[in-house]
Amino acid sequence: MSEIEVLAEALRIGKTTADTLTRRALARIADQNGELGAFAVVDREGAVRAARHADDELSNGIDRGPLHGIPVAVKDLIDVEGLPATRGSAHFADHQAAEDAACVQRLRAAGAVIIGTTVTHEFGYGPTGDRSWHGPARNPHELRRMAGGSSGGSAAAVAAGMVPVALGTDTGGSARIPAALCGIAGYKPSFGRVPRDGVFPLAPSLDHVGVLGATARDCQLVIQALAPRHSACQSLAGSVARIGWLEAAPQTPVSPAVAELTRNSLAEHDVTEVPWGAPDAMWEAFSAIQSSEAFATHADRVRDRPELFDAEVLDRLRSASETAGWHYVRALRAREEARAYMSGLFERFDLLASPTVGITAPLLGQREVDVNGSSRAVRSTLLALTCPWNLLGFPALSVPAGHIGRLPVGVQLICPPDREDRLFTVADSIVPSSVNS
Amino acid sequence: MSEIEVLAEALRIGKTTADTLTRRALARIADQNGELGAFAVVDREGAVRAARHADDELSNGIDRGPLHGIPVAVKDLIDVEGLPATRGSAHFADHQAAEDAACVQRLRAAGAVIIGTTVTHEFGYGPTGDRSWHGPARNPHELRRMAGGSSGGSAAAVAAGMVPVALGTDTGGSARIPAALCGIAGYKPSFGRVPRDGVFPLAPSLDHVGVLGATARDCQLVIQALAPRHSACQSLAGSVARIGWLEAAPQTPVSPAVAELTRNSLAEHDVTEVPWGAPDAMWEAFSAIQSSEAFATHADRVRDRPELFDAEVLDRLRSASETAGWHYVRALRAREEARAYMSGLFERFDLLASPTVGITAPLLGQREVDVNGSSRAVRSTLLALTCPWNLLGFPALSVPAGHIGRLPVGVQLICPPDREDRLFTVADSIVPSSVNS
Repeated sequence: MSEIEVLAEALRIGKTTADTLTRRALARIADQNGELGAFAVVDREGAVRAARHADDELSNGIDRGPLHGIPVAVKDLIDVEGLPATRGSAHFADHQAAEDAACVQRLRAAGAVIIGTTVTHEFGYGPTGDRSWHGPARNPHELRRMAGGSSGGSAAAVAAGMVPVALGTDTGGSARIPAALCGIAGYKPSFGRVPRDGVFPLAPSLDHVGVLGATARDCQLVIQALAPRHSACQSLAGSVARIGWLEAAPQTPVSPAVAELTRNSLAEHDVTEVPWGAPDAMWEAFSAIQSSEAFATHADRVRDRPELFDAEVLDRLRSASETAGWHYVRALRAREEARAYMSGLFERFDLLASPTVGITAPLLGQREVDVNGSSRAVRSTLLALTCPWNLLGFPALSVPAGHIGRLPVGVQLICPPDREDRLFTVADSIVPSSVNS
Repeated sequence: MSEIEVLAEALRIGKTTADTLTRRALARIADQNGELGAFAVVDREGAVRAARHADDELSNGIDRGPLHGIPVAVKDLIDVEGLPATRGSAHFADHQAAEDAACVQRLRAAGAVIIGTTVTHEFGYGPTGDRSWHGPARNPHELRRMAGGSSGGSAAAVAAGMVPVALGTDTGGSARIPAALCGIAGYKPSFGRVPRDGVFPLAPSLDHVGVLGATARDCQLVIQALAPRHSACQSLAGSVARIGWLEAAPQTPVSPAVAELTRNSLAEHDVTEVPWGAPDAMWEAFSAIQSSEAFATHADRVRDRPELFDAEVLDRLRSASETAGWHYVRALRAREEARAYMSGLFERFDLLASPTVGITAPLLGQREVDVNGSSRAVRSTLLALTCPWNLLGFPALSVPAGHIGRLPVGVQLICPPDREDRLFTVADSIVPSSVNS
């Protein structure tokens, strides 16, 4: 049973109230946020008011469904009316959101209680989650390690039990990577399925609203509120019989322990190894598209107030400005070719799967990591297995697959658009296991 | 009455035969092509065979419509089965087309007789029409002047009376510019309306198949064969009441004589001046998109065999490679903004209009031109008024508006997609006039 379902039942049988849940969340945040750096802003007053309203409604017979009265956190890239909207950057140190983003409106309409905003890597531009105007988000499993990013604050908040679910964004893995590193579930729906109005852009053809939850089922319940006609909300016919396991490739470094745990987590299923297709072209395409679009988003700020950026983010943006237009054009073509290849795989397989991230959480600030005896860049290692699904827009879900020592590992499931039901069916069957580090 | 209609009637009343028309075309080509440089390849045998077949069909009661038995030329960027397909470049000196382009298949299905291929600026990358592996296309009105480009050979062939119509392509004005400079009609349909299979690309999001004809009606008859459900083929209700005349802008240099002739050509209509909107953004967007896409088309050739390019084309490609990816991304946004602005104008006006080209034909090889006392680059001056309609994909037609001295001038009409009928209605009412140079 999911955390939301447990709480929803307790609310309805009078075992708790939304006010109690909210105060408990606020107390946990007060207790732990100093060391975790999960929340950017806590809206104590607004949350308590919303919780009381939720309680009033429930006692008057108005029931908005499973999220009614449930505390939820929202990444600082997503506008929440009246709250500071810094996007993790000094550029927006004094900015306040004028209205709720469309996805926040939907959460409120479903009765959710918005607790506050969570720390994002500056402008969402980094999978490490440790470069933000608010400071780094830390991994609840080991505080000297990164929570991952860019939705690091949302992942830390959920993993530490402050809230059962949180909204994130996902441009290259920004919801799934921190979910995997923090031992929770992270979900990126089909491209375009959840509206992005009021969500600060990074690379618009790759940007998704994502959900981080204690379990996959928690993510599914949030998606029901964000995109009611989403296939994850339906029970469609047919079981998941065939899973294609994406083979290791030079572009996707995976440690042996991560490979073993994630592969074993699907032991119940009929799993066949499949190649990535043209991996070089796919990763180059992701990089060219992300760079060009991210710099188009930030060019004026880089020109006018470069000193307000975090130095590493500024360096990345400056490199991003050097991507050539013709590379972008070729990347759009490579994207179509890769989409055709993966669509072909989905004729043979119900789902594809891989580790979510090939390593466990690196240390805060760490930028090189040893994988299988070679030194790798942390950033590309974190992104390697998640970013293809932003390039192609297919839905992807990261589910906890166990631990290596005390650090969590996630397994990623990918499905064709409009068959998200399969992800959540298989997520229920995942068997986590552990090994010593 | 159009040239095609005159010939079609003569064919049907037995006054001529397709064989006669073809032999007459071949004779004119033999006579004039040496000095004009209009045709790249003349397919004497194939044309005579096709003409006889057309005659046989007509005498057996098979009538394929107005193009039946009519000689047509095809730009050397468009594949004609079995003929050399050089694309105006030494890169393809030995290349032969394996099959007909889709548009050529449709011409043949309509009974047209393909006479041969016409000279294109190398790879279609230049509005001057004077840099081709086959040598420059010359203007029939004055041989030391350019025919314009890139469909210069098609324009010269039609203007010299070798064929009544010819296919061209149009990425920034490549059909309309040479039509205007050579005193014929040139038409670019809505983006995507005519299939481009078998047409060598330049910048795929700007590329169109175009038609050059002795009159606008000739273009319309060809479009009926190329895109049978095209609105130019229908008589839709309502007359054209309101024409918006696009005002002079710094980006659109127009000589006073051209301005006067073209404006006067619409004297019958209710014409109101309208601004271009955000002209800088629009021209920058065209340039960023064309550069990025053109280099993406040719990057491998530039890397592997740069020496095979014409030096000027190679220089342009090398500059094109320097356009940044983020400029391309911003150009795509500017394109949408400009499209919204022009769509707004079409709520107030049935058609928009402007000169096709602000000057008359420059000399072959000329690269600077004086317009209103300032020196301007020939290339951007030629493209200024036509390329916005490639950026936005709206249909645009150039119609002869008269002469300055012996050099022709064209007026351009632009309509909303799916209302091409309006272009051809108004084209019939254009009143050409002349001034001394």
